[in-house]
Amino acid sequence: MRARGFAGGISGEIPWLGQLILMLINGHESEQIPVSDRGFQYGDGLFETLAVEHGEPVFLIRHLDRLRHGCKRLAIEFPGHDVLSSEASRICKGAGRAVLKIIVTRGPGGRGFQIPEKARSTRVLSIHPRPDFPVDFQSAGIRAILCRNRLGINSSLAGLKHMNRLEQILARSEWDSPRIQEGLMQDSDGNVIEGTMSNLFLVRNGSLQTPDLSRSGVAGIIRSLVLEIAASIGIAVEIGRIGLDDFEAADEVFVTNSLIGVWPVVEFERFTYAVGPLTR
Amino acid sequence: MRARGFAGGISGEIPWLGQLILMLINGHESEQIPVSDRGFQYGDGLFETLAVEHGEPVFLIRHLDRLRHGCKRLAIEFPGHDVLSSEASRICKGAGRAVLKIIVTRGPGGRGFQIPEKARSTRVLSIHPRPDFPVDFQSAGIRAILCRNRLGINSSLAGLKHMNRLEQILARSEWDSPRIQEGLMQDSDGNVIEGTMSNLFLVRNGSLQTPDLSRSGVAGIIRSLVLEIAASIGIAVEIGRIGLDDFEAADEVFVTNSLIGVWPVVEFERFTYAVGPLTR
Repeated sequence: MRARGFAGGISGEIPWLGQLILMLINGHESEQIPVSDRGFQYGDGLFETLAVEHGEPVFLIRHLDRLRHGCKRLAIEFPGHDVLSSEASRICKGAGRAVLKIIVTRGPGGRGFQIPEKARSTRVLSIHPRPDFPVDFQSAGIRAILCRNRLGINSSLAGLKHMNRLEQILARSEWDSPRIQEGLMQDSDGNVIEGTMSNLFLVRNGSLQTPDLSRSGVAGIIRSLVLEIAASIGIAVEIGRIGLDDFEAADEVFVTNSLIGVWPVVEFERFTYAVGPLTR
Repeated sequence: MRARGFAGGISGEIPWLGQLILMLINGHESEQIPVSDRGFQYGDGLFETLAVEHGEPVFLIRHLDRLRHGCKRLAIEFPGHDVLSSEASRICKGAGRAVLKIIVTRGPGGRGFQIPEKARSTRVLSIHPRPDFPVDFQSAGIRAILCRNRLGINSSLAGLKHMNRLEQILARSEWDSPRIQEGLMQDSDGNVIEGTMSNLFLVRNGSLQTPDLSRSGVAGIIRSLVLEIAASIGIAVEIGRIGLDDFEAADEVFVTNSLIGVWPVVEFERFTYAVGPLTR
C-alpha cells in the first residue's frame, strides 16, 4: 500500500507520503484484513504504539517484550522478535518522525468465542503521521479532567494493551475542547487508574506514587522506564491504590506515554499544580 | 464472495456452499475490511447473531431494534432498518437453516481513541453454518461450570452486544470437555450475570429470577422474549442481583440465546436440577 492510507488533508503535510510502505500484514503490503480475523470479530488481540525518530522505532525491544508477554497471557501465538524487528525496520525506513503501530491478533477463526485449534496469529505493522502536540505541553503542562466513564475490573486483562478499547473511546468522547489534553479514569470501585491514553504519576514529598495496575489499566513502556529510573537514582515509588483524595495532597502530577513522553499536569478538576522539579 | 469463506472440512457438509453470497460489506460482496476500520482497531462496534430458518432471519426486527438502540448509546451511525432488512433478505435467501451475523462498526478512522468527525459506520452481514447442537440439550439439559474469569462492571457498556469480547473468550477457554456446554460468569463483585454466550434464568417457587444487566452483561433477544411471555401469562419475574447462594434455593435453571433457544441446566458445579415444568 502506498500513499492511499492517508486520504484528504493530511497528505499535503507529510513529505514521505507516496514513497513509503505504510502497512504490512503478515509481511505483505496490504491494507485489508479478512472479516473473519478475530481481531475484527472480538477485539481478540494486542497492540503497541511506538514513536519513530529518524526512521527508527524507539524502545522497540521493550515494546516487543511487552507484546510477547501479552501474547503469552492471552495464549496468542507470538510472531517472534526477529520477524517483528525486521518488519519494523522495513516499514520505518525513511519515515523520519512518525508513529509505528504493531497489532497482533489471534488470527482468522470461526464464529463463536471458542479459540480455534491451531490458530495462527495475524500481525499488522502500520506507519502513521506523528501527532503534532505543542512543545508547551512538555514544558508548561496540560489540563486534565476526571472522566465519568470508568474502567471495568478484570485481573486477566489488567496491564495488557489489548484491542478491547470501548471504555477509552467513551471516556475520550467526554470532552471536545482543545484546552483539555487528557481525561483521568477511575475503575468501577473509584480508584484512579490512568489517563485515556497515558499512565499517571503523583509526586508527594519527593516520592512517586503510581496506580497499581493488577486489576485494570495498561502498563505503559514509559511508566516502566520512569519506575526504573526512579529506582536507579533512589527516588521512592509507591505502587498502590490512588483515590481522588491523593490529588489534594500531591505536589506534582504527570502523565506518560510513548508518544508524549512526560506531560506535567498543571490543572485537574479543582486542583492546580506547578511543573515541579521531579517532573522536570 | 462465494464459497471461499468456509475453508477446509466444513465445506463438504454445507449443500449451499458455492451458490450463495456469504458476506456483504456495505452492500458489496467482499470478505475484507480496511485495517483502519475502528471495529478492527478497537472493537468499536456492535453485532447481532440471528438464527436463519427456511432462508429467513428469525426475530429480525427485534435484533435490528437492539442494534439501533446500541448504536444510539455508543453514538455510532445506525445504517437504518430498511437497508439492513433488505441486505439480510438478500444474504439469507436460499440459505435454509444457518446463522446470520450482522456487525455495525463506527467505520474507518484515524489512529487514536477520539471519534472522528463525520464517522460513517461500516456494516457487515455474513452467513455461517448453524452449529449442530444435539436435540438432547433442549430436552434433557446441559452441564455448566462457574468460570474463574469475571466480567468488568461498566454501566456505559452494560446490556450491549458490543465487539469487545475478550472477557468471554478467556472464560470460554476455561473448559475443553464436550461434556460442558456453558460457563456462567460473575461480575467483579461476585454477582452471577450470564453465560459466556447466553442469558441466565433461575426458577424458584414458580417465579423467575434473572440477573440485572445494568452494570454488565448482554441483554439478549430471547431473554427479552422470555420476560414478555412471563408477563403475559402471569409468571412473576424478579430482575436483580443473583449470587451463588441463589443456586442452592433454585428449583430449575435455564439459559437462553438466539441460536439455542432455551437450554435447561441440569448440572452446575455441585448443584443438580431436574428439567422442570416452567423451563419446559
